[in-house]
Amino acid sequence: MSGITTSGEKKLKLFSGRAHPELAEEVARALGTELVPTKALDFANGEIYVRFLDSARGADCFVIQSHTAPINQWIMEQLIMIDALKRASARSITAILPFYGYARQDKKHLGREPISARLIADLLRQAGADRLMAVDLHTAQIQGFFDGPVDHLFALPMLADYVGDRVADRSKLTIVSPDAGRVKVADQWCDRLGAPLAIIHKRRDMSQANTILSAEVVGDVRGRTCVLVDDMIDTAGTICAAADALFDAGAADVIVAATHGVLSGPAADRLKNSRVSEFVFTNTLPTPAQLQLDKITTLSIAPSIAAAVREVFEDGSVTSLFEGVH
Amino acid sequence: MSGITTSGEKKLKLFSGRAHPELAEEVARALGTELVPTKALDFANGEIYVRFLDSARGADCFVIQSHTAPINQWIMEQLIMIDALKRASARSITAILPFYGYARQDKKHLGREPISARLIADLLRQAGADRLMAVDLHTAQIQGFFDGPVDHLFALPMLADYVGDRVADRSKLTIVSPDAGRVKVADQWCDRLGAPLAIIHKRRDMSQANTILSAEVVGDVRGRTCVLVDDMIDTAGTICAAADALFDAGAADVIVAATHGVLSGPAADRLKNSRVSEFVFTNTLPTPAQLQLDKITTLSIAPSIAAAVREVFEDGSVTSLFEGVH
Amino acid sequence: MSGITTSGEKKLKLFSGRAHPELAEEVARALGTELVPTKALDFANGEIYVRFLDSARGADCFVIQSHTAPINQWIMEQLIMIDALKRASARSITAILPFYGYARQDKKHLGREPISARLIADLLRQAGADRLMAVDLHTAQIQGFFDGPVDHLFALPMLADYVGDRVADRSKLTIVSPDAGRVKVADQWCDRLGAPLAIIHKRRDMSQANTILSAEVVGDVRGRTCVLVDDMIDTAGTICAAADALFDAGAADVIVAATHGVLSGPAADRLKNSRVSEFVFTNTLPTPAQLQLDKITTLSIAPSIAAAVREVFEDGSVTSLFEGVH
Amino acid sequence: MSGITTSGEKKLKLFSGRAHPELAEEVARALGTELVPTKALDFANGEIYVRFLDSARGADCFVIQSHTAPINQWIMEQLIMIDALKRASARSITAILPFYGYARQDKKHLGREPISARLIADLLRQAGADRLMAVDLHTAQIQGFFDGPVDHLFALPMLADYVGDRVADRSKLTIVSPDAGRVKVADQWCDRLGAPLAIIHKRRDMSQANTILSAEVVGDVRGRTCVLVDDMIDTAGTICAAADALFDAGAADVIVAATHGVLSGPAADRLKNSRVSEFVFTNTLPTPAQLQLDKITTLSIAPSIAAAVREVFEDGSVTSLFEGVH
Amino acid sequence: MSGITTSGEKKLKLFSGRAHPELAEEVARALGTELVPTKALDFANGEIYVRFLDSARGADCFVIQSHTAPINQWIMEQLIMIDALKRASARSITAILPFYGYARQDKKHLGREPISARLIADLLRQAGADRLMAVDLHTAQIQGFFDGPVDHLFALPMLADYVGDRVADRSKLTIVSPDAGRVKVADQWCDRLGAPLAIIHKRRDMSQANTILSAEVVGDVRGRTCVLVDDMIDTAGTICAAADALFDAGAADVIVAATHGVLSGPAADRLKNSRVSEFVFTNTLPTPAQLQLDKITTLSIAPSIAAAVREVFEDGSVTSLFEGVH
Amino acid sequence: MSGITTSGEKKLKLFSGRAHPELAEEVARALGTELVPTKALDFANGEIYVRFLDSARGADCFVIQSHTAPINQWIMEQLIMIDALKRASARSITAILPFYGYARQDKKHLGREPISARLIADLLRQAGADRLMAVDLHTAQIQGFFDGPVDHLFALPMLADYVGDRVADRSKLTIVSPDAGRVKVADQWCDRLGAPLAIIHKRRDMSQANTILSAEVVGDVRGRTCVLVDDMIDTAGTICAAADALFDAGAADVIVAATHGVLSGPAADRLKNSRVSEFVFTNTLPTPAQLQLDKITTLSIAPSIAAAVREVFEDGSVTSLFEGVH
Repeated sequence: MSGITTSGEKKLKLFSGRAHPELAEEVARALGTELVPTKALDFANGEIYVRFLDSARGADCFVIQSHTAPINQWIMEQLIMIDALKRASARSITAILPFYGYARQDKKHLGREPISARLIADLLRQAGADRLMAVDLHTAQIQGFFDGPVDHLFALPMLADYVGDRVADRSKLTIVSPDAGRVKVADQWCDRLGAPLAIIHKRRDMSQANTILSAEVVGDVRGRTCVLVDDMIDTAGTICAAADALFDAGAADVIVAATHGVLSGPAADRLKNSRVSEFVFTNTLPTPAQLQLDKITTLSIAPSIAAAVREVFEDGSVTSLFEGVH
Repeated sequence: MSGITTSGEKKLKLFSGRAHPELAEEVARALGTELVPTKALDFANGEIYVRFLDSARGADCFVIQSHTAPINQWIMEQLIMIDALKRASARSITAILPFYGYARQDKKHLGREPISARLIADLLRQAGADRLMAVDLHTAQIQGFFDGPVDHLFALPMLADYVGDRVADRSKLTIVSPDAGRVKVADQWCDRLGAPLAIIHKRRDMSQANTILSAEVVGDVRGRTCVLVDDMIDTAGTICAAADALFDAGAADVIVAATHGVLSGPAADRLKNSRVSEFVFTNTLPTPAQLQLDKITTLSIAPSIAAAVREVFEDGSVTSLFEGVH
Repeated sequence: MSGITTSGEKKLKLFSGRAHPELAEEVARALGTELVPTKALDFANGEIYVRFLDSARGADCFVIQSHTAPINQWIMEQLIMIDALKRASARSITAILPFYGYARQDKKHLGREPISARLIADLLRQAGADRLMAVDLHTAQIQGFFDGPVDHLFALPMLADYVGDRVADRSKLTIVSPDAGRVKVADQWCDRLGAPLAIIHKRRDMSQANTILSAEVVGDVRGRTCVLVDDMIDTAGTICAAADALFDAGAADVIVAATHGVLSGPAADRLKNSRVSEFVFTNTLPTPAQLQLDKITTLSIAPSIAAAVREVFEDGSVTSLFEGVH
Repeated sequence: MSGITTSGEKKLKLFSGRAHPELAEEVARALGTELVPTKALDFANGEIYVRFLDSARGADCFVIQSHTAPINQWIMEQLIMIDALKRASARSITAILPFYGYARQDKKHLGREPISARLIADLLRQAGADRLMAVDLHTAQIQGFFDGPVDHLFALPMLADYVGDRVADRSKLTIVSPDAGRVKVADQWCDRLGAPLAIIHKRRDMSQANTILSAEVVGDVRGRTCVLVDDMIDTAGTICAAADALFDAGAADVIVAATHGVLSGPAADRLKNSRVSEFVFTNTLPTPAQLQLDKITTLSIAPSIAAAVREVFEDGSVTSLFEGVH
Repeated sequence: MSGITTSGEKKLKLFSGRAHPELAEEVARALGTELVPTKALDFANGEIYVRFLDSARGADCFVIQSHTAPINQWIMEQLIMIDALKRASARSITAILPFYGYARQDKKHLGREPISARLIADLLRQAGADRLMAVDLHTAQIQGFFDGPVDHLFALPMLADYVGDRVADRSKLTIVSPDAGRVKVADQWCDRLGAPLAIIHKRRDMSQANTILSAEVVGDVRGRTCVLVDDMIDTAGTICAAADALFDAGAADVIVAATHGVLSGPAADRLKNSRVSEFVFTNTLPTPAQLQLDKITTLSIAPSIAAAVREVFEDGSVTSLFEGVH
Repeated sequence: MSGITTSGEKKLKLFSGRAHPELAEEVARALGTELVPTKALDFANGEIYVRFLDSARGADCFVIQSHTAPINQWIMEQLIMIDALKRASARSITAILPFYGYARQDKKHLGREPISARLIADLLRQAGADRLMAVDLHTAQIQGFFDGPVDHLFALPMLADYVGDRVADRSKLTIVSPDAGRVKVADQWCDRLGAPLAIIHKRRDMSQANTILSAEVVGDVRGRTCVLVDDMIDTAGTICAAADALFDAGAADVIVAATHGVLSGPAADRLKNSRVSEFVFTNTLPTPAQLQLDKITTLSIAPSIAAAVREVFEDGSVTSLFEGVH
């Protein structure tokens, strides 16, 4: 009979953009392999050039890029890497986004706004990504923005267990949502640590546009150890104001925990000057040098990403890695 | 020069499926037109047949279908109508979904689940819809599930103003979210009515799967008029339990307000037996006959839909209809 | 060199919707495996919820759903299952439609009608199906409605051989098409059984719309054993009238054979009251309980489906299963 | 306010490929316009070059090409013309196919065959066609092969009325289908002319592959004027054999009527030598010079196409042109 | 009859990103309108936020963004603007790229490279652009990267006429291509100015990788006024070396002309120190402040863009603006 | 656990259209396999029929077709073959185009022209091709016309080495580009053979449209062995005129080398009558019988194609086959 037959095999190849190479290397080590050697540089006018030095033909390719600053450059670099892999006959391409850029622009608040989080999903798909992998998406609905499988990893169990272990008397714990939009995250912490809930609620004066009258604490915090939780801390304005409101309401201590330490602009000063006793993040994003403070703790997300990549490659179950989380 | 030139004109045509014809007719009246005569029937084996009796060629077509029970039948009917319009050379097709079916399945809670809300958007797009129009989506991110414009209408201002007018002493009002997931809606009511917030928070016993220990009231409700708000009331289990918890915590009165009165299964009995003084809905869905109760108030969404259709057709601004809402 | 290499393997997984689980289980048994355990239920408002309890990652997934009543519900369930598999990283998804719903709406008879059979193919594709498998499509052109491979199975040889074996004197056989549109099917029976052809031809009175003057028998049937053949029997009106016309024209006996026993609405009464000596169907659709009649014979299609699934999975040839059929 | 506003207008432009310019010019005249001047030529290696000499920007463009021999060249030319119009900013592009090439390959008869009729629809869509217009498709299901509107024109009424007028005694008429696959067309003639039906049925000897035993006439034709009808006559082998069988069975006269006179290969000789008294076609295809026979009558389809183009351009109803036909 | 009919009208709206607002404003003035007021800003972590303050519904929208540094930011901003317009129901969206970023990466030189110029076209299309407008693309084939109309504007006639007017004795002119890849551009200058051609040809030593042996001047330049032409000058290394080679070969004078003055990195120093007598660019890109040199001449492209936008909007002919250029 | 698991394997299948079967068979031999037996024929009206006689299910399929005359027929045949493979469940489909038809129409020279080279890529993609393989594309940008991997093979090294070996004194060699558009190809020859460059430059008289004043030789050719190089020779008009100009300018000898010998129309006579001493081509296209001249040398491209197919199938590197070429 016509034709040639050989036994099939599967190859995994791991690629990293230039945004956060330390994390990518840690993932590679956890997998027992190395990153594919890659030439990447900026031309004088800022255009990015990428070339892979190993063949990607027929391989299941994973492209890690964390969307840190300069965020548009790193997004474009990831798109260019995916285009290069598509044209190099990769068998499948998984874009790994430890931090998914533009995730907060996930709906139109006002007319004539973009939905940039959907746009990012579309651009990745168009460039050639078959699957996304991301950690603690700002809203879970973003999974639905991508027309294909999204493997959603959760840092919350790791963070909550760390905080639970740090606190001497768990019966003194209260989980606090910094605003009305993040109560769902706080609710998951309550479940995991068996703690009550409180909310910082912003009252607005509707007679004057955009004026916030006061931040009232809804729930009981007096004398308690409050854990302010969020998926990300960016300029830290909201979270530090929330911490102040908790102390004003009689909180004994305040800890802040979030998966993504974006920490841009005035965040460095705010964290330094805050009365918060500890800030806990993961390394989905690189920590700026000026933020190497004693009260900042960084837990590594690399083992979770490596475990998920392995499950994907071996046709196992990513779901099984996060039993009981949702 | 070769060719024929004529002045252009625009035509609006309004079509209705069989799910909720009263609403469609009310919209048509508000627009000063009539629904396009349509032959629609079920064959003996349940297959739907649809044919339009007027030409749709070159027209901007709007297809109203509310996703009430039997919900899969009405979704399929809307898809079939859109297919027929596409093949009949409609210039544009807008699917109007006063209630967007499957909106609650907007993310994967667990592995190997569908994201049915995205699937609905994809099916409408595939059938031929160019634009969606919907009222108070379960989560605003669903806008991003559709690859095209989504005109999002808000019933909240109408509902909040109605409730605000009903209450003698507004300073006694407290807005209550029935669970952690709906705090954002409650927050918008707080802003509009200048009222404080409370939350019903479910404590779970993590040592036993799926066991809810208690529903604790976070915030101050004693002696106050509580407005429990949500986007939809389905079986009314959560909302009636929440009302009980509020009365137990000393609430003086409880009013329930929601855009969508799904009211399926045990809802009829629960509403009848509840201590809630008034339930306020809109007519995005037809009200079942056994639910014509005195304590149910239904406000009409038809004027809002008609106004939005007119803005779309005349290239005006739907945004301008809902200034200050988001 | 960077990367990880392992030997590849292939996995087949079989899933069933709730429309006709007996058939799916029979297929699974014939394949020597079991259906993937699946949680499927209807919420109170009729929305369907589906979750698979085994991982589907990397597997070649086959989703059986027969489009029986309530047909729109089962179509939607199949779409939702496919969406869930797509998002669960299935390697490939084959939708098995023992009976393909809406197949009769395969063209526009009149302006402003849908082509619902194409719509069904588009919806399955959009949800994520890579391949269709179907039995005796109403018209073979429906294969061309799907943008991908369609494995078309034929029950005709099984039915014809059964009928051929039942008849004492084959030289007395005449194959009869119940109307002008089904002559092609009858022609294939003629070829297989070496029998002559007759047709029931409806004469219309064009001076009065939609009035059928008479059903004339074209061809010789007097004293012969007539086999009325069709792809499906729905309300059985046409087929029972055809049988009457044959008896009126002197037929000695009439047998009815069809792949799909839809048998909706008045079919039960018509079959009971008919002079036809035997009705032969396959089990592509479940037989309603009130139709467990002695004169109904049901042949199982499960071995054919199982054989085709095996050929697909093992990269064999489905064509080879049906040599000489077309 | 920012922006510039002007009144809109619509422009129709008509383009013709080189396959059958006489028909295109006749359509243009019927519309009261001229074809857009077009430069079209073949390079020495057979590549086609096309350029339009008028602007097509913003116009509703109609591209007529009849798929006559050399058929692949003319299909490619139409695709190239559509590509050029898409890139020239046409507002809409309608491909007019008086004869739709490859229409007979509308299903897989055997494994590993193409469905070329679907491929043609896909290629036209990919090149940029928004709508198809075609005359008497080989099977109506081909409408469903195109993902967009298909305006289906019918020559049957014109042909049937012509034949009806030609025959002195209509009560002597019998409509004959040349094989089992074309009975539906014959049935429509029966309805229109109030005549009975007969069929030429081919008996096959299944013990020997591909051997046709005999062509039996099913129905009564003795002494009658038989009208053999089909959508197209290609090599005329089937139709001339059918005519012989009718004469052998005692037919008084035989007329052949078909929309498309493909008339390739041995058709010229067969028509010349046939006992058929008249062949009636339309000019959807150019008639080869060697076929200018007295017994061939050609009716013009141009008025129908022109009327349909006008309805499309003016957003009227193409359906209304063919009331009662289907 | 059902429906509402009004006369149609067309609206043009012009939008600008933040890359080169001076050019956009000049285009708006030339069109006699104003840019749509737009709120655009960077969040602290670099994410871009855009909102339009006028309705875009039903308008033909043109979005100008020149891909200058920081190039990835401005590309992303243009994509986000297009997404916002798509979701705001724009009738059509034209992306205007006075300078098309990544145009030089228009093919794979080596394996495992991207084709970033195609990627840019794909991203614009995915975001929602219906048409591109660009000036002097690096290679004309980039038109073919976009699946839709591309209006290609030419600055060459303006540049050539300017240079032609500057030179006292045209018979002394020689047009010089700075390398083998740009001879086609030079050839067009030759045609327009009736001048002979010369080329700077780089000889490579193949025994040593990437080593250029020498730049030899092919053609006669001694005593002549040489015009070195290119589509863009980036770091100016090639062009200044070419000028040196020309002076070394006896050129009397050297003028440099290019459409796009990218002028990044060491370009400022190189231009200052060069013996070239005049550099002529257009303002498709903003000129860096440190490059306000006397020997740099900048011609405005705004009138050409405005004229092309007007032709597009009024369904005229962009081709007619550039008769004789290609 | 549910499901069936087997070890995977890969199958390669090679198919050939009817355009240039000798080349396909040579490739098959070089791979150590045979072409899949295929039934292909033209119906009387020119429609092509194709059927494969072996199963293609699950195989990596390669479809060779060289776009020689009649070019539109062979392109259509390749599209039809790809459609058949898609519907026959091929795992992947690679279209091999030794000569890529319409490659010269890779941009719009004038308004309202097609970009037929992009159209060809789109048609192949639409029909179902996952990957292209082509030899010496007319411009490298055509790689970017296809939305997927393109494996680009180079005959230049083979041609250049052959010519280099033929010439006694390499220091006498000059590489000549026949016009301004092909200098890049000539430049690569210069690099490979270490030879200087010359160009034939056409001077146009702009006062008279389309008038070429003269072909001037830019560079030094007197007494030298000139190698005129191009990617293809079609009618041979340009190349033979260029050779004449070189002899007129004193060239000692002229050799012509090109990958693709299209050689249509007047080429046969021109080659016979030319003073060129040797024409060197590859067999990407069949050589017409009347061109079996002694001075024509044909090198086989089959080993290169076979090597590339093997690399693709075995997930190796096609890039590695052409180190140093670009």
